[in-house]
Amino acid sequence: MDMQTDANFYAVIPAGGIGSRLWPLSRASAPKFLHDLTGSGQTLLQDTWDRLVPICGDNIAVVTGSTHASHVSEQLPSLSPENLLLEPSPRESTAAIALAAAVLSKRHGDVIIGSFAADHVIHETDKFELAVREAIEVAKTGKIVTIGVNPTEPSTAFGYVKTTESIQGFDSALQVQEFIEKPSINKAKKYFQSPDYLWNAGMYIAPAQLMLEVLAESEPELAKSIDALAEKILSGGFDKESVKSWNGLKKVAIDYSVAEPAAKKGLVACVPASFEWHDVGDFAAIAELQSQGRSGNLAVLGKAKVLSDSSSGILVSENDKLIALIGVEDIIVVDTPDALLVTTKQHAQKVKGLVDSLRASGKDELL
Amino acid sequence: MDMQTDANFYAVIPAGGIGSRLWPLSRASAPKFLHDLTGSGQTLLQDTWDRLVPICGDNIAVVTGSTHASHVSEQLPSLSPENLLLEPSPRESTAAIALAAAVLSKRHGDVIIGSFAADHVIHETDKFELAVREAIEVAKTGKIVTIGVNPTEPSTAFGYVKTTESIQGFDSALQVQEFIEKPSINKAKKYFQSPDYLWNAGMYIAPAQLMLEVLAESEPELAKSIDALAEKILSGGFDKESVKSWNGLKKVAIDYSVAEPAAKKGLVACVPASFEWHDVGDFAAIAELQSQGRSGNLAVLGKAKVLSDSSSGILVSENDKLIALIGVEDIIVVDTPDALLVTTKQHAQKVKGLVDSLRASGKDELL
Repeated sequence: MDMQTDANFYAVIPAGGIGSRLWPLSRASAPKFLHDLTGSGQTLLQDTWDRLVPICGDNIAVVTGSTHASHVSEQLPSLSPENLLLEPSPRESTAAIALAAAVLSKRHGDVIIGSFAADHVIHETDKFELAVREAIEVAKTGKIVTIGVNPTEPSTAFGYVKTTESIQGFDSALQVQEFIEKPSINKAKKYFQSPDYLWNAGMYIAPAQLMLEVLAESEPELAKSIDALAEKILSGGFDKESVKSWNGLKKVAIDYSVAEPAAKKGLVACVPASFEWHDVGDFAAIAELQSQGRSGNLAVLGKAKVLSDSSSGILVSENDKLIALIGVEDIIVVDTPDALLVTTKQHAQKVKGLVDSLRASGKDELL
Repeated sequence: MDMQTDANFYAVIPAGGIGSRLWPLSRASAPKFLHDLTGSGQTLLQDTWDRLVPICGDNIAVVTGSTHASHVSEQLPSLSPENLLLEPSPRESTAAIALAAAVLSKRHGDVIIGSFAADHVIHETDKFELAVREAIEVAKTGKIVTIGVNPTEPSTAFGYVKTTESIQGFDSALQVQEFIEKPSINKAKKYFQSPDYLWNAGMYIAPAQLMLEVLAESEPELAKSIDALAEKILSGGFDKESVKSWNGLKKVAIDYSVAEPAAKKGLVACVPASFEWHDVGDFAAIAELQSQGRSGNLAVLGKAKVLSDSSSGILVSENDKLIALIGVEDIIVVDTPDALLVTTKQHAQKVKGLVDSLRASGKDELL
């Protein structure tokens, strides 16, 4: 395996999604990938970038909303302007990744691309690199490769991949029989017991052309529009018609439009991850991650001066004001200049509902 | 009974004390009496003033710290400047009330004074007025009269007065046998069962001269200094020597220096209050008061926009930012520009300890 960067491989970071469950920190104007949610001193987006550089250098494209262009450029000084692809509106993962695939293959020919969400947390970068390098090699044999994560609990929050036999000639790659959507708890428990089921972490490594071909069969209209829009980008950028076309694109997750149909054709492989992987979907997940299993801990993100008396949970602050906690357990406190959230780890999932109610009542300035 | 104002009666409002258990709302620079803690739209000090006006018009003196002079004047536009007595430093209730007694009797001769804390909550002002008017009449017979509050629970947080027989010629006045300091829970339960024991609400109505005479016997040095300081005020105000003298005054509560010695001489009477009385010592007490017995309620003080999903407790805010609470019960959230407190009603008393630790660590700007 070549430990140099792979000139034929391009990483794509689809940086979309507001992260409603992380309100009021994550906002429409500053979604979660623009924040340091791990205390690393870098944002999730910067961490994602840094994990990919050893594999492909600056061959990294970011697909994000037009409104985030300046934030993304500031956070990623090595991102070349031509690799910053701006979405006029959010159209889900297929549109974002397919646009990047089309642009990159039109520019660079028959490349391998890999898509990596901007808001995942992976600390063991060496193991991540090894897995992606193997996935690239498997992809070169004409496969769409997903990185499978070994379940640590019978989660109903993730989709699963069912793997079968090993693929010869590789360290750990497995054939994928099917993708399974977020299961019921009973099914999740069954999958958790079996060595054949892995979490689908949504990282896909594949020849760009293969992805686009599968898409052309499953969603021909979407594929055609994407191809035309990619041409527009190559010839100077979106015009008014392109924006209209983009805003009309079908919203569909790439898992449904590409991964599942490809699996039915036997075109999908899986490289099991040996690294820990975290989807920091809500503040409870961040608290867990921060406390690293130690219970009774209080995690602190931000510059707040903290005084705590027998309190645990997580405290996130965007300013340096004093925050005093007395006897509150598993608490979540998120203080921003215009909104303060107080809840508990147990209720962390309900934050999304609160954001929905803000939207319904027209309080858009707080979203 | 004359329902006009009583020209011979002067009310004294000792407005001291920081209210540490109400941090971070109550600060050294803005103690609790300067805040609206009841949602009345007025501060506790203004409410206290308004309760007294029907009894004595503008014959009201306020004794407060020099640093609060401008706040107090702003909040009480009818307070005459000569009735604003400023303490160079806090020296406890005897110094404050005795200074007012001495100044008022030197100015107006043999007056009756009544002292009323600036931070009590009494909603039934008619009943309050009736009780004080009766107390004034009893005081005119040469008594120091306290307003006794009928205990609603076996509290260990208040002192008690033990009453004996009725005083002839009055509606409800009783002779007081003794004052009892904050008791053990066992004793409090005994007192709670007996009709003879009432809470000492710390309101004393008496001839100014009588109070000063009792003080001269119990604390001769303090009484002498106070007399000299009162002379200074009459002749233009404190000079450097006065401030030095004031700062050296013995700190003693008027309950010990005047009320108890007077009771031993049979000079104390009690008018039982028929009104509800609240000492809003901590945020749990404010929450109780706000929710008026309804459990599961969320009390809100201040201008915050609030979004609450099955939360209860109290939320106090000094700005109009959005505060979202999800599933937190009996919570206390107090948001100020430079400090945020999150605790529960159960731990409300511990706020004082937190303030003590701030003081110990030299964070005086937050006190």
